[in-house]
Amino acid sequence: MRALHFDGTAVRFRTDLPTPAPAPGEALIRVRAAGICQTDLEIAKGYMGFTGILGHEFVGIVEKIAPASDAGVPTGASALNAARWLGKRVTGEINCVCGKCDLCARGLSSHCTARTVLGIQNRDGAFADCLCLPLRNLHEIPDHLSDDEAAFVEPLAAAFQILRQVPIEKRTRAVVLGDGRLGQLVAQVLATTGCALTLVGHHESKLALAEKLCAGATAARQTSAQFRAVFERDLRAARDHDVVVDCTGHAEGFLRALSLVRPRGTIVLKTTAAAAAPLNLAPVVIDEITIVGSRCGPFDQAIRALAAREVQVAPLISRSVPLAQSAPLFAPGAAPGALKILLRIQDRT
Amino acid sequence: MRALHFDGTAVRFRTDLPTPAPAPGEALIRVRAAGICQTDLEIAKGYMGFTGILGHEFVGIVEKIAPASDAGVPTGASALNAARWLGKRVTGEINCVCGKCDLCARGLSSHCTARTVLGIQNRDGAFADCLCLPLRNLHEIPDHLSDDEAAFVEPLAAAFQILRQVPIEKRTRAVVLGDGRLGQLVAQVLATTGCALTLVGHHESKLALAEKLCAGATAARQTSAQFRAVFERDLRAARDHDVVVDCTGHAEGFLRALSLVRPRGTIVLKTTAAAAAPLNLAPVVIDEITIVGSRCGPFDQAIRALAAREVQVAPLISRSVPLAQSAPLFAPGAAPGALKILLRIQDRT
Repeated sequence: MRALHFDGTAVRFRTDLPTPAPAPGEALIRVRAAGICQTDLEIAKGYMGFTGILGHEFVGIVEKIAPASDAGVPTGASALNAARWLGKRVTGEINCVCGKCDLCARGLSSHCTARTVLGIQNRDGAFADCLCLPLRNLHEIPDHLSDDEAAFVEPLAAAFQILRQVPIEKRTRAVVLGDGRLGQLVAQVLATTGCALTLVGHHESKLALAEKLCAGATAARQTSAQFRAVFERDLRAARDHDVVVDCTGHAEGFLRALSLVRPRGTIVLKTTAAAAAPLNLAPVVIDEITIVGSRCGPFDQAIRALAAREVQVAPLISRSVPLAQSAPLFAPGAAPGALKILLRIQDRT
Repeated sequence: MRALHFDGTAVRFRTDLPTPAPAPGEALIRVRAAGICQTDLEIAKGYMGFTGILGHEFVGIVEKIAPASDAGVPTGASALNAARWLGKRVTGEINCVCGKCDLCARGLSSHCTARTVLGIQNRDGAFADCLCLPLRNLHEIPDHLSDDEAAFVEPLAAAFQILRQVPIEKRTRAVVLGDGRLGQLVAQVLATTGCALTLVGHHESKLALAEKLCAGATAARQTSAQFRAVFERDLRAARDHDVVVDCTGHAEGFLRALSLVRPRGTIVLKTTAAAAAPLNLAPVVIDEITIVGSRCGPFDQAIRALAAREVQVAPLISRSVPLAQSAPLFAPGAAPGALKILLRIQDRT
């Protein structure tokens, strides 16, 4: 099959890779579209030690099922009804877990120490004709959502994770740092709460887009709009925000967040900055700041928000590129200023 | 009056300082005993930019009251009953706040941006014959507690703050890093919850002491003892602890905490390490760790715990030194291995 493969040095388009065989309890999925995420670009720089097929944001069709064996492979409700998945349009959660370890037993299965992660850790990813995922990871996509929209479920779920970790309500003063693809999604998700929201960025067009989309998000929930988009350079440095979400992708984002959060406020770290930064944690203690690391989130909530049109993702698509032409996108600085780039993998006829 | 004064370069015993005059709403307190804290030693290294009289852990007698004026000085219940404080044995909260700013209005007065802090920020401290504090900061000490015990109320309150910030219960797996004076107090406070507690340190005698005191703390609350004291070098590095409290006082403590906390667990930062350390926050995001800065705490809870003999502090006193002889204690490395050093300020006859 065809795939974008990272060998530890470069990302290459290959046509000589075998179609994978689903393990017991897994589905073979024919991918239709996939999204490029900052994590993919970081992996392509070699930072995470992954080699294989990249990609973890996708939508595709279930083509084949490998029934769970009787020999101890965990069988959830999904697996028991395996056959019903055939032909369905799905996306899937990216953490493939053992179901048996201490963390799985404690309800922390997305942190299972034995986990593989689609396109990130010991499991080939979605920038390919086909991928395999456990049936219990799958989520069906409602018919009225496009493939393009469905490819956003994974990052949108990651944005919704913030609402599960930190109380954000109408009276909350929140800041999102970064007007890139993740900052845009996080801003819309926070806007659905009706909180007083400030998005801080560097790009006029992206800030204007966020303004429009967040107004839509608040309108969809019939909350009053309290959104403002601010250029980084124009931001008054006042430590009076309850919650600051760092979506900058830079280690400096944390320091910026510290300069904006109020005492006993919360900083949410959403992006993994590759570089280590010198950091004095004394202000965190003195001002009793809470820092919350935030990663994967609830797919069901993301799908519901897309289906209800509370969140708009199509305007965030900068380009849609055929798989065969996409390898150059992973060179450093290849797509400056782009928001979401989607890979077209199967023709949608 | 006599006092230990830091001029930005050295800590000196002086006898030529004027007795302070309490501002409206404040009390003049004749200090009987005071405790040396890591923060005092850090200030004496010049890290915090404070000059003046050091010290913020104390017990003393209210000698004089300056009634609150009618001209807008905030008057709490304490101030209205000002006269009742005269002659009382008290300790006091260290943050002196404006009562009017946004943070005070939001119930975050201990973080008031206009605050002065006893012996730490724009307010002379407790290593002196007398100090001044607002009446509303004062807490009366029960008669059956000694001066030595009462001098521990402030750091013990800081230890209790952890229980207000992080849920810790019987099934919680907690680690306290550091067997020094703060680590000892935090361990006893956590032990009162009956949680599964590990104290990690470098000193045989301190670990043995903690073992004895924590057994007492769990016994006082009739919870079953689940305490172990472990040498740092003997600690199995397993990321399976729900809560890790860093009381090491070193920037490296945070990295050690990261190596012990489970995914979605909590690290409590209790000490302000002076040096900035290179720090990669990516693991915080990937494992969704929560980091909580923790500073001052509830004096009433600390006094209750001392009065009920749930927490033992007298065994933590390494030495008791007359004020006039105490300046050399602030030289770097002056008291290696000491737990709490108290300053005897007035003779207790």
